[in-house]
Amino acid sequence: MAKTAAALIIGNEILTGKVAEQNIYVMAKELFALGVELRRVVVCADEIPTIVRDLCELKASHDIVITSGGVGPTHDDVTIKAVAAAFEQKVVRALPYESLLREHYGERLTEMHLRMADVPEGARLLATPELRWPTVAVGNVYVMPGVPQIFRAKMAILREELKGSGAFFSHAVYVALDEPTLAPLLDQLSFAHPQVNIGSYLHWGDDADYRTKLTIDGRSEQLVELCFQDMLAGIPRERLVRSE
Amino acid sequence: MAKTAAALIIGNEILTGKVAEQNIYVMAKELFALGVELRRVVVCADEIPTIVRDLCELKASHDIVITSGGVGPTHDDVTIKAVAAAFEQKVVRALPYESLLREHYGERLTEMHLRMADVPEGARLLATPELRWPTVAVGNVYVMPGVPQIFRAKMAILREELKGSGAFFSHAVYVALDEPTLAPLLDQLSFAHPQVNIGSYLHWGDDADYRTKLTIDGRSEQLVELCFQDMLAGIPRERLVRSE
Repeated sequence: MAKTAAALIIGNEILTGKVAEQNIYVMAKELFALGVELRRVVVCADEIPTIVRDLCELKASHDIVITSGGVGPTHDDVTIKAVAAAFEQKVVRALPYESLLREHYGERLTEMHLRMADVPEGARLLATPELRWPTVAVGNVYVMPGVPQIFRAKMAILREELKGSGAFFSHAVYVALDEPTLAPLLDQLSFAHPQVNIGSYLHWGDDADYRTKLTIDGRSEQLVELCFQDMLAGIPRERLVRSE
Repeated sequence: MAKTAAALIIGNEILTGKVAEQNIYVMAKELFALGVELRRVVVCADEIPTIVRDLCELKASHDIVITSGGVGPTHDDVTIKAVAAAFEQKVVRALPYESLLREHYGERLTEMHLRMADVPEGARLLATPELRWPTVAVGNVYVMPGVPQIFRAKMAILREELKGSGAFFSHAVYVALDEPTLAPLLDQLSFAHPQVNIGSYLHWGDDADYRTKLTIDGRSEQLVELCFQDMLAGIPRERLVRSE
């Protein structure tokens, strides 16, 4: 059962500001709902040595690693080579993937299309009925495409692989007080409830009925509830906007 | 002159999918325009040991590091403590910042407000006329708030600090061909023009007049132009949608 995850976002286009990254949010929500703790995200350039170094570090220190980007047939798509190097495997052509490509492209098929069937030796090909192309997984690393629409669709594969990992319990409390005013209560709650994670986020601007959103997360429903009750008890009733 | 940059995004709210990260894109565009290469972004949890480890690594291997998030008066705002630890400095109260806070909050001021004036010893306080609160910088680390509206406003400080760092030259070419078809040309261009960075990005969906966007970036205007001319020459005229 996976408890912790890391993500490696591979793409010069993110680092040069050509494209706004969209996959971190999708993945973070999905993993939280699956009860898997996303501990770390790294965004790196399309360079094999960098990707290999990051992958080796992340896969050794987390239960699973999800990569995004650098998958495709062009010169800047180096993720598969890097994943293979990180696992000290060769890149080989996956026959089931090749068959799918031959079937789809027919006479238009070239060697460049077949590059997409190149995977690290020993890779698993994960598929769902809704997705035409399989997802490559090697050890605890899942190789996802960077294109947001495809990335979102492929979350179905993670749901299948990671189900039963656990669950998080959460509450949110919206308060009409600023953070300096709430700070003493939060100091006290975080000291009294070390097993839960308490967050405080100010709302900037005048377009909401609250000033600060407080959050409580944890793996124990009982401990989260205890902290939630203590938090509610510590906020003046007239300043408590709502809770969920 | 800064040539390379890294970013450390500090925030459990990003990793648990409560909030969509917005600052990477803003910072990446800004740094690219300033001629500074953003080499790496790390998103980590609100934990002092993790932040210290990341900061030590990033500040040693990049000309500048920009942090986002974890700045404020509550228990989960630990960035200042972590930056101080990474530079082996104490946290001290900055008198000019304290004066600003006293002036702004007047009789409402509490010790919790004053926490915002706590900075690593020896920190610089960077200000612009438009921003009420100064930005803390220590060595080559710039400490920015996570709230996107404030983060964007504070980009003015980076522009001032980093001007004259250099420049990137770029072209983009929009093509009505898919990536497998373009792959041989791109292999050849990336081999012939090792000093420029060539990107290839497929457009997903039917809402555009092109299939693939090709990009060229580099620090030498002449080398970027040469690659651009070679790229245009390699694309059949009827498939070239536009270039910029």
